[in-house]
Order: sequence, then structure tokens, then C-alpha cells
Amino acid sequence: MSQESAAQPERSFGRSVAEMRPVKLTPGIMKNADGSCLAEFGDTRVLCAATIADGVPKWRGASKDGWVTAEYAMLPASTNRRTPREYKGRKGRSMEIERLVGRSLRAVCDLRHLGEFTVTVDCDVIQADGGTRTASVTGAWVALYEALVAAREKGRIKRVPLTGQVAAISMGVVRGVELLDLDYPEDSHADVDMNLVGSSDGRIVEVQGTGERATFDREQLGRLLDLGQKGIDQLLQIQREVTGFEA
Amino acid sequence: MSQESAAQPERSFGRSVAEMRPVKLTPGIMKNADGSCLAEFGDTRVLCAATIADGVPKWRGASKDGWVTAEYAMLPASTNRRTPREYKGRKGRSMEIERLVGRSLRAVCDLRHLGEFTVTVDCDVIQADGGTRTASVTGAWVALYEALVAAREKGRIKRVPLTGQVAAISMGVVRGVELLDLDYPEDSHADVDMNLVGSSDGRIVEVQGTGERATFDREQLGRLLDLGQKGIDQLLQIQREVTGFEA
Amino acid sequence: MSQESAAQPERSFGRSVAEMRPVKLTPGIMKNADGSCLAEFGDTRVLCAATIADGVPKWRGASKDGWVTAEYAMLPASTNRRTPREYKGRKGRSMEIERLVGRSLRAVCDLRHLGEFTVTVDCDVIQADGGTRTASVTGAWVALYEALVAAREKGRIKRVPLTGQVAAISMGVVRGVELLDLDYPEDSHADVDMNLVGSSDGRIVEVQGTGERATFDREQLGRLLDLGQKGIDQLLQIQREVTGFEA
Amino acid sequence: MSQESAAQPERSFGRSVAEMRPVKLTPGIMKNADGSCLAEFGDTRVLCAATIADGVPKWRGASKDGWVTAEYAMLPASTNRRTPREYKGRKGRSMEIERLVGRSLRAVCDLRHLGEFTVTVDCDVIQADGGTRTASVTGAWVALYEALVAAREKGRIKRVPLTGQVAAISMGVVRGVELLDLDYPEDSHADVDMNLVGSSDGRIVEVQGTGERATFDREQLGRLLDLGQKGIDQLLQIQREVTGFEA
Amino acid sequence: MSQESAAQPERSFGRSVAEMRPVKLTPGIMKNADGSCLAEFGDTRVLCAATIADGVPKWRGASKDGWVTAEYAMLPASTNRRTPREYKGRKGRSMEIERLVGRSLRAVCDLRHLGEFTVTVDCDVIQADGGTRTASVTGAWVALYEALVAAREKGRIKRVPLTGQVAAISMGVVRGVELLDLDYPEDSHADVDMNLVGSSDGRIVEVQGTGERATFDREQLGRLLDLGQKGIDQLLQIQREVTGFEA
Amino acid sequence: MSQESAAQPERSFGRSVAEMRPVKLTPGIMKNADGSCLAEFGDTRVLCAATIADGVPKWRGASKDGWVTAEYAMLPASTNRRTPREYKGRKGRSMEIERLVGRSLRAVCDLRHLGEFTVTVDCDVIQADGGTRTASVTGAWVALYEALVAAREKGRIKRVPLTGQVAAISMGVVRGVELLDLDYPEDSHADVDMNLVGSSDGRIVEVQGTGERATFDREQLGRLLDLGQKGIDQLLQIQREVTGFEA
Repeated sequence: MSQESAAQPERSFGRSVAEMRPVKLTPGIMKNADGSCLAEFGDTRVLCAATIADGVPKWRGASKDGWVTAEYAMLPASTNRRTPREYKGRKGRSMEIERLVGRSLRAVCDLRHLGEFTVTVDCDVIQADGGTRTASVTGAWVALYEALVAAREKGRIKRVPLTGQVAAISMGVVRGVELLDLDYPEDSHADVDMNLVGSSDGRIVEVQGTGERATFDREQLGRLLDLGQKGIDQLLQIQREVTGFEA
Repeated sequence: MSQESAAQPERSFGRSVAEMRPVKLTPGIMKNADGSCLAEFGDTRVLCAATIADGVPKWRGASKDGWVTAEYAMLPASTNRRTPREYKGRKGRSMEIERLVGRSLRAVCDLRHLGEFTVTVDCDVIQADGGTRTASVTGAWVALYEALVAAREKGRIKRVPLTGQVAAISMGVVRGVELLDLDYPEDSHADVDMNLVGSSDGRIVEVQGTGERATFDREQLGRLLDLGQKGIDQLLQIQREVTGFEA
Repeated sequence: MSQESAAQPERSFGRSVAEMRPVKLTPGIMKNADGSCLAEFGDTRVLCAATIADGVPKWRGASKDGWVTAEYAMLPASTNRRTPREYKGRKGRSMEIERLVGRSLRAVCDLRHLGEFTVTVDCDVIQADGGTRTASVTGAWVALYEALVAAREKGRIKRVPLTGQVAAISMGVVRGVELLDLDYPEDSHADVDMNLVGSSDGRIVEVQGTGERATFDREQLGRLLDLGQKGIDQLLQIQREVTGFEA
Repeated sequence: MSQESAAQPERSFGRSVAEMRPVKLTPGIMKNADGSCLAEFGDTRVLCAATIADGVPKWRGASKDGWVTAEYAMLPASTNRRTPREYKGRKGRSMEIERLVGRSLRAVCDLRHLGEFTVTVDCDVIQADGGTRTASVTGAWVALYEALVAAREKGRIKRVPLTGQVAAISMGVVRGVELLDLDYPEDSHADVDMNLVGSSDGRIVEVQGTGERATFDREQLGRLLDLGQKGIDQLLQIQREVTGFEA
Repeated sequence: MSQESAAQPERSFGRSVAEMRPVKLTPGIMKNADGSCLAEFGDTRVLCAATIADGVPKWRGASKDGWVTAEYAMLPASTNRRTPREYKGRKGRSMEIERLVGRSLRAVCDLRHLGEFTVTVDCDVIQADGGTRTASVTGAWVALYEALVAAREKGRIKRVPLTGQVAAISMGVVRGVELLDLDYPEDSHADVDMNLVGSSDGRIVEVQGTGERATFDREQLGRLLDLGQKGIDQLLQIQREVTGFEA
Repeated sequence: MSQESAAQPERSFGRSVAEMRPVKLTPGIMKNADGSCLAEFGDTRVLCAATIADGVPKWRGASKDGWVTAEYAMLPASTNRRTPREYKGRKGRSMEIERLVGRSLRAVCDLRHLGEFTVTVDCDVIQADGGTRTASVTGAWVALYEALVAAREKGRIKRVPLTGQVAAISMGVVRGVELLDLDYPEDSHADVDMNLVGSSDGRIVEVQGTGERATFDREQLGRLLDLGQKGIDQLLQIQREVTGFEA
């Protein structure tokens, strides 16, 4: 069933089913990080900070390539009900998200040209209202870009080893209606939940679709990906505006 | 680029690009579990065992619904290079896989009719040769079904609360060729890596596609899903043969 | 040796030895917390968030009193050199600070009148430039006050069980000069490092003085406490301005 | 009291008090391990896998000798009531068993001739029905031997540095009757529980006897060791049959 | 080979091969414990302290019986080379010893008559010079007895639920000579290492014999147990002297 | 309110408000440590042991200076109610105390002249009756001094790199009366709790004052410090007597 056949739901920020929440990417907000970006998708706020350290993880062996990785955490009070810190064991969800962010960034980073540096991008959720992983990917790219530009300016690296941009957005089916960029109330009622990570050459870096309460078919997958691609295009445009990056 | 335009690669078991490895599902092989299944996808062997315990996790609150969850681990010697046990902290990959198995099983299980029981399906990899997560999902369903049938026979539950079957298969792009059911050597060279979880009503439960070394486009996604669906259909058929389940 | 006899050092924000950095307390900045405050002491920024939960810790036994506690953490990129998250074991410094914040808040909170609630105040350092513990105490009081006012408005508690305000400031001796409110470069060269926690009735809640590189005598202790008291008075005034609290 | 004076109990597999359960040792069943063996003592099944890695543990210091160690774990569903994985802390029982297996193997291994390699023998209990530690020792020797033979064939080591074989069996007193090779129901009612590890030169490597519910005297110890030695002899014979090892 | 055929070694405290080190058991040395004993075997010193708490561990289920357990740790400076505290994971050796102490005490304690109490006996090694586990068992019994007497006097229990005494001693073979009560230099060169736990009715509670560097035969086992029994008898006598316990 | 205006309380050991408990420092009581001291403040007993190891912690970087650190733990039965061991996570209180001990020792140790050694002083509380942290600091200095003297005698270091002595004492306000050296019953009812660490040149190394139940003012702080300084002077004198140290 396509979204036309259903009554239009009331969405936050008065937006239509195919509209994202207001997105704001604010680079350069952390004095001590090599690069940083506050990513806001509506009420969701994620602080992304990139740090460049000498050397690469041991498990990378004799490789001379660099490494890009990510960490993800939620401030305890970012959620309605306080979320405990992960001191007694990591949560699968957090590890899943930080692995996704790392893979997404590496998809557009030429690790060979990075050289023997490790870039860690920390994504700390200040306020959670759905889509924290997509805001993380989108803001992390800005923080990474900023850090790499700064490293080039300091002469640590010769050129910014990025092959393009990467951004992410969520799509889902809520009460039979296909929606772009779900906020928390929508996400917690979604029958199908999907995340799309796209690169600036119009291709897919990662797609994850889950039938949380209902399964889905190929046609619905196609329509959701169409929705998502529109979101990706807008996010890539905002990234270019705030960084001056040229593809 | 479709697979027709490339030279056909040599694949294990002499199979074509669109063929799965020999699959064998052996139910009932663990005396002490409520249900069990040894799932073999070629040289990949996963021991799946379902245990039904009274009660549900505390975080489920006042809900009277049951719960189905999964755990995933690799025996240290299941891999070529010994894999340490996760005593000093879980690995993100393991937690990701066990979450996937749990979600897949819940997609075809009516938790309301299960009642206040928790079913844990342990997926222990005896031998790893690629596709351990897809073998886990596919074998876990058989173990779960067996455990639920046994519980019904003992009068713990009134009927088997399954709405259908679920199975999983991998697809990927290796050196430009689209392949079904990657073994380890293929998987470790894959440019694109995808997993499809499908249900017996022909719908998608979960799709995860990652551009490990290269991005992909919508057409390629479509072709890979076509490949995957064929594999899912075969797996569902084998599940029915070994369990006698009727949709 | 008093500070008059030494050459006046260059201090950040062009301030004199007895001046604090610009202080800004911004309440109400976290949508999901019961109370919150961004505390800025110059470039040091701490996000304080208070959450009120039903019940009290088990170790409080049969007591009907409430409980107020705190947690303290630094975002990895809050420091110049990335600070690892405390997943593999807490750091003594963090536990020391969160214990100090908790004790300080409890000194002005009537736990009996709070009733069977636990208030957790999370202090997360967004940017560290010295004085994170004093900014934490000072901002935590604002977040706590805001949370208690909100709880009273929702009818969870009958009245705001605070007996007054609490704020904290650092003092120290750097190259023989006594200074108020040390920033990070000053702190890392301090011979003597002191923290004063004061209440709105002009009394001392806690004093901690450490001879990091040099010992100190009673006269110097006296002069440093004089300096500190001036800072406390100013902080209490700012707290009243942003909250409307009346002693 | 000797076993003659008591009514003969019903034992699994219709065996007499001095008989072991059917024992089966299947070498070579894990493709990725250097050596492996499935050890079956009746319904108890333990998968033993030996991996040879370069180097020795740091704590061995400047020694040029090799090292042989073991790890022991139970699959969660190997027991009637699901056994949780030891992620939040090892269990004393498991550590005790893996230390016993390591000591037993080292008793017949010439570490000097092994050279700077570490052999880890993983004993994973697939199904538990009593005697998992004795099946572990017995199967571990086969896996170790197989791994050392393979290493010699690959030229990693010059000769197989084993001075003999090692095997283990349990004895116990149940309701006044002395028994060989207790299964789980017997073990859980044993008054005295004993394990004997013996080498192929007819000597004792380790003896552990515990009065679980009753103490024992020297005569009873003697009779139990006589029983055990018969079991050891049979196990050593089976090891020779499946490996072709010649003492 | 018996000890007669070898040159008599120089032993600490000028003792013969069949003599124990000077043993001193000092009850009542910890003000806050329910019962305590400093056990000294030559230079080995273990502080044993028994605490009686209401209730029994959850895993004991619906049983109304009491429980007796033990913990064992070494002070870091008890050994020549500083031993790290077990904060990042327990050591197998420590868990093995505390399990042995617990089993030994339970062998002479009537848990049914203890009632719903848990007695924890902490054995903390102040100084280690070999035989810490045997000193622990021997001292732990004194601490346990003292705690039970005190509990009876306070009316917490009706009678002291002990069926007898328990003590432990080590034996070993060092350079071909059979020795009683090995000190650290002897223990670290032992070919065979044995521990005997005996009760006051002359029976065996536990025997553990390990061929560390050499195997042993039944005759040697017999001679070592004869040696050990003499030590046990002396220890039981000392226990009676310091406690006034009458069998 | 000064102490004159209140009725004199009954204190342990029949002492006046300004008197310490009987203090006894016994050096050299641990055979295996490089230096040791049993510190007794009334019924409080802390075993302090110093170990000197080659090398310094990695985080000290390229510095050629030595390092002095401390660890603090309570034996479980040192307290009235058994204190669990910190195996599942350190307690903030313990870490706070061990950091205080380390800082105090470093204040009188010339790390440059120590050279590339790490001295660890373990403070293990055998019996707790208030003031364990002050007994720890006071005894730790004796153990450190003893270890350094021994190292000089063995030629590991050229001279004892101490610039003086350090000792610590507690003060507090209990029911309006200012007291020196609080025992546990006093400490648990204290309105104000203070610790003073003083050096042998009459200066302050550290002061920590906490209004546990009541705040305090500058005058009271002054009177408490006066009390404390008298205690420090006596402790320094006892340290000199037992070590022969000359300032």
C-alpha cells in the first residue's frame, strides 16, 4: 500500500510524509577536537568530534594504511527515561551504530592516502528524538572533513584523502504510511524501519531494512529507497554548504 | 555490470554464481536442549539450540507476552586463526549477529500466544567458512520450531505460536561478479556484501547491504535481491522437509 | 608570599589574579531531562542534567528519605588529547569528582522532604579547560533546582526541598602567585591547587587543598580561601539571576 | 564397604559397576583446527581442538621452551538447565578444569623440544552427562597429538615432542557402591567423587578425590584407584587405535 | 624411590623430611569478625576471618539449609615479587583454593542445623612461603568454630553445627625425596605436589596429587599419604588446644 | 561554637577531645616486602607494604623520573558488616584514598633522584575503626622510607630521595564538639569531617574538609586545623622514633 491511500499523519514540524525535519550542521564547535560538528535533525542533537592520532591499531598488522573508526554513546539524560552509562558492558545497539558510522566514513576515505594515522570520530548524543544514527553519520563526515583539512594545514597529511561525501537518513512505514526521517514517536511505532547511507556519487554505501512488526516486499523497498535518496541529496547539499567541500 | 559479462569464477563445490553450497539441516541432535539443529552451509557448521525458560526479561515490564532472543558465539577453533573467547568484553560483530537472529525469529513468532516464556536460541559456530549468520538464522528457526512443538506436547503451551518460517542467505559482489551464498574466501574479497532474511510468505524480514570496498546502485541491489530470493525459497523448502512444518 | 610581590601574569580573558573567567549558566537546554544547565566557565563547558526517578537505592535500607547523586564524565574530545571512555574501569579522578558533586548538592537538600525519589545529576564535560569540577557543582545546582521546580509543578513533590544554594570555585598558586579560577594551562602548572564549595549562607561545604608541587602554610590557605569566597559570592548571584531562586 | 556387599545398581548402557560407558574418540573433525577430536563418553560429548601459535606467553620470561595450555567451556544448551556463558566473570569450576587439562597434557609433553610455540587446546562441551573433565583430558591428548603430527609434517617442528599418552577417568561412591565413570545422575548423588589422570607408563599424573557428602578412608581410596586404573588402560588403548600412536 | 636412599636435604627450621614447620594458630585476633584466626605455618601467615550473615545464596533455592563458603586472596606484598590484585579478573588458582576451603569446611558442618545463615570465611594471605592453601583450611576451621560459638552465645543458633574438625597439609617429592609441609623453595622445585585434607575421625576429606614435573605410582602415593596423615593429626591437636574443642 | 561550651564526651581510650588514640607504628613486619609497617591508631590497623619495581608507568612518557603510587583495600572482615571485595568494580572511596596516599608520599619524595623505579605502597586495612586513610598515609611513609633505605643498601639507588616526612590525621565536629582523631562511632556521627596531611617542615600537604551534615565557617576551620597540627607533630615524632629518620 502506498502512502497516497492513507490519511496524511500529523508530523512534527508540520512536514509532509516525504519531508525531513529541519537539519542543521554546525562545524567547528569544539575547541579541543581536530574537527567537530553539531548535527541537528529536528530535536535530535549529536555532537560529532574527530581526533587524529599517530599510529594505527595493532590488528591492522604491517599495513601502512590509515584507519578511521567511530564511537557512539548517548548522554544519560538525552532520552526521556534516563539511559545508564555502559560501564558494566557495552550495549549491542551502540556497538552496531558505531560500526555503521565507521564503515560509512571508510567508504569515502582513501585509507592508503591517509597514511599511518587513526581518526576516531566520537558521536555523542546530546538529545535523542529518533534518527541518532543517521545524524551521527551525517555529522561525522563533516567532523572528519574538518579534521582532515586542519591536518593538511598543519602539514600532518599532504592532501585530504576523501573520495566524496557520505550522509544517512531513515525511512519507515508507520501505520501503513511510508515516511522519511522518522522522529522518536514515529520510530517507536514503525512496522518497517530502514536506514540508507548514500555517497555523493549517487550510490548506496549501506542499506539496512528491518520488518520490526511487519515484513515488506520489493515494491515497498523500492518506494522507501526513492524517499531516502531524496533525503540523502538534501543532506549532501547541506554538508557542502557548511564545509565548502566540492565533489 | 551484471554477472553475465564476467568470466565465471571457480567456486567451492563446483557451483555456479547463483547456486548455494550444499545445505543440510539436522534437527534433534542435542539431548538436553528443548530443540536443536545443526545447520551446515557447505563447510560452515552452526549448532543451534533452543531453550524455553519460565518468565520474561524484567525490561519487558508488565507485558504478558513471551520473548524470543538469541546468542551467537564462535568456538575458538572454528576459524583458521584461533578466535579468542569474549570474556573481556563482547565483540560488536557477535552482538550484531545475535540481535539479527533474535529479530528474525520474532518476525514469525506470535509473542502474545507464546505466553510468559523466554526462548533463547544459542547459535554456536563449530566451523566457520562464511555465512555463519545466515546459517544461524536458518538453523535457529528449526531449533525454535522443534522446541515449541516439544513444549506443546508437554502441555507447556497450547499451540505452536509461529506465523511462518524464516531463513537467511548472503549475496555479494566479488571482482565484479554477483554471487549467491559466499564462502569465506569470497566474503573476504567482496566489494559488496548483503544479507537477506525472508519469510515463508515471500516477503522480506530484513535486508542489510554494505559496500565494503565499493558502493552499489539500485539496479545491482535489485539483481542481488533476486539472487537472494531464490536461495531463501530453497532454504524454506529444506526447513519444511526436515521438520514437516506446513505453512 | 602574597600576590602583590610578583609580576602580574597574563591570564586568559585579560583578567586579574582575583577574577573569574566569564561565567554563563544556561538552564533548560535539554528537552528530555527534568532539569538541565549548560555551565560555562570561560572555555570550560559542562552539560548538567537532573533526572528524578521513583525509589531510592537499596543500600539506603528502610529509610524514607530521598537521595541525590551525581555522575561525571568527559566526552573523549573534550580534552586536547583524546580521553578514552571509561568502559574498562572507572578512573579514580572521575569517581572523586562525582562524589564531590553529590555531597555538595546533598548539603543544601533536605532529603527527608524530598521523599522516596532519587535525583541523578549527570555532569558531562563537553569542553575541558580547567575547573570542570567547579563548573559541575555550580551548574548541577541549577539543574537540580529546575528539576525540583518541575516536579513540584507536576505534583510529584509538594515543595522544593532545598535549604539554599551551593557553588564551587578553584584557587591555586602558580609560580608563586595566588589565582582565582584556574584555567587548564594554569592548573597544569599549579604548585597548590584548591577547591572551595560554598553555600548561600556564607559557609563552607567543602574545602580541598593539595600541594601538588609544593606545600603551603596556614596564611596562604587563608588568603586562598578569601579569594575563593569572592568567587563563590559571584557564582551564587549568577545562579539566582538565571533561576529566580530566592534564598 | 566394598561394592560386592551392595545390591547392584541400574546403570546407563546396562553396564556393571566397574564398566565405563561406550567411549568414542573421533579425530580430525574440525577443518580449521591444527588438530581435533570429538570425545564421547556415553552421552557426554566434548569437542577438543588444538591450535598451535607462534610465541609463548610473556610471563614465561626468557625461557625458550614451548607452552601447552587449555580452555574449557560448556555450550549453554549442553546441560539440562541452560548454563549462562561466562561473559561477566569466569566460574571457578571452569578454570579448575582447564587448569587440570593443561597440567595433564604438559605432563607428557617435552616443552623444551616443542620450541617457542604455544598450543592451546579448547575443550567445548557440546553435551554434558557427567565426566566432562575426563572426556576433555582424554580427547585433548588426541587433538594435541594430531596437531603436533601436522606441525611436524609442515616442518614447523622437527619431531612430535610427546613422551607418552595421558587419559582420565572418574570414580565415585554412590549409595555405598563404588563405581567407575559416573554419569550425571550418579555424579549428582555421589558421596565421594574422584578423578584419576594416568599416563601410558602406568603411573599417576593427577589424582583428585573429594568427599562431597562423606569422607573416605585409605582402603576405599585404594579400591577406587584400582577401578580407575582399569578405565585408564582402556582409554589409552582407544587413543592408540584412533591415532596409531606407538608408546 | 623412597626418601631413605637420598641425602637428607637442608630444610627450613632445621626440620627432618617428615616434620612440619612450627605451626601457630591464634584465634580471636580480629575485633570486627564473628570469628578469626591467624594461621602461621613457618613464615606463611594467613588471616582467616568468619562472618555470619542472614540468609543463603539465591541459587540454593528453597532449601532451608545454611551455607558455608570461603574467599581466598593474597596481599600484593605477601610474595617476593608483588602480586597484582585480581580486579580485572579472578585467577584460576585463587578460585581453586577458595573452592577447596569451602568444600573442606562443609565436610564437617551440618548445614541443616546451621539454619538459614551464610558463613563466609575470608582467607587473606599476609605472607606467602608455601602451603597457603593448607594454612587456610586449618585456620579457617578455627575461625569458623569461633564464629559459631559466638553465634550460639548470642542466641542466633542453638548449637554449634560441627560434626568434627578439618585440617590440611601438603606433601611432595623434591629431588627424589618425600617431604611433609613444603615451603616455597621446596614447592617450586617439587616433582610431585600433594595436598591432604583430613577430618578428626581419621578419614580423608580431600586428596589432590599432581605430578608437576614427574608422575608417581601407587606406592609413592601411599607413602606420601602416610606422611600427610601424621601432619593432619598434629594440626588437629593444635586446633583442639587453641579452641578447647572436644571431638 | 567552640568545644569549651559543650559537655566533654566520653571518648575511646579515655582521651580528651584534643587527644589522639594510642598510635603504634611497627616497621619491618613483612618478610617479602621491600619495606613495611603496621600502623595502629587505636583499634584501626593498616598493613602498609612498599615494593620497588624496575621501570615506570607508560603514561609517564619519556620522563626519567621515578614514580610513587599507592593502593588501598579493606579486608572483608575488617569492618563490622562484611565489606565485599572490589572484584566487580572499584569503589570511589577506595580510589580516592589511594590517590590521596600517593599524592602525600610524592609531596616528600624527589622523583628525579628516585630514578626509573616505581614504588607501590599497598595499604591493606586489617581492622577498621575510623581513620584508615590517615593511618595509611602515616604508615605508608614508614614503609616507603624502609624500602628506600633497603634499596640504597642493595645499591639499587644511591641515596634515599626523601625531602622529609609526611603524616596525616583526622579532625571533626561531633554533636557540636571539635575532636581530634575520630574513631568509627564518632566519624559516623560527624557533622564536619576533616583530614590534614602535614609535612615535617610544618607545612600543609593536603587538607580536605567536608560538611557531611552541617556546613562550617572559617573560624571553625581554623580551630580544627590547630587541633590537627598537634596530631601531625606527634605522628612525625613517632615516625622518627621507629625509623631513626633525621629531618
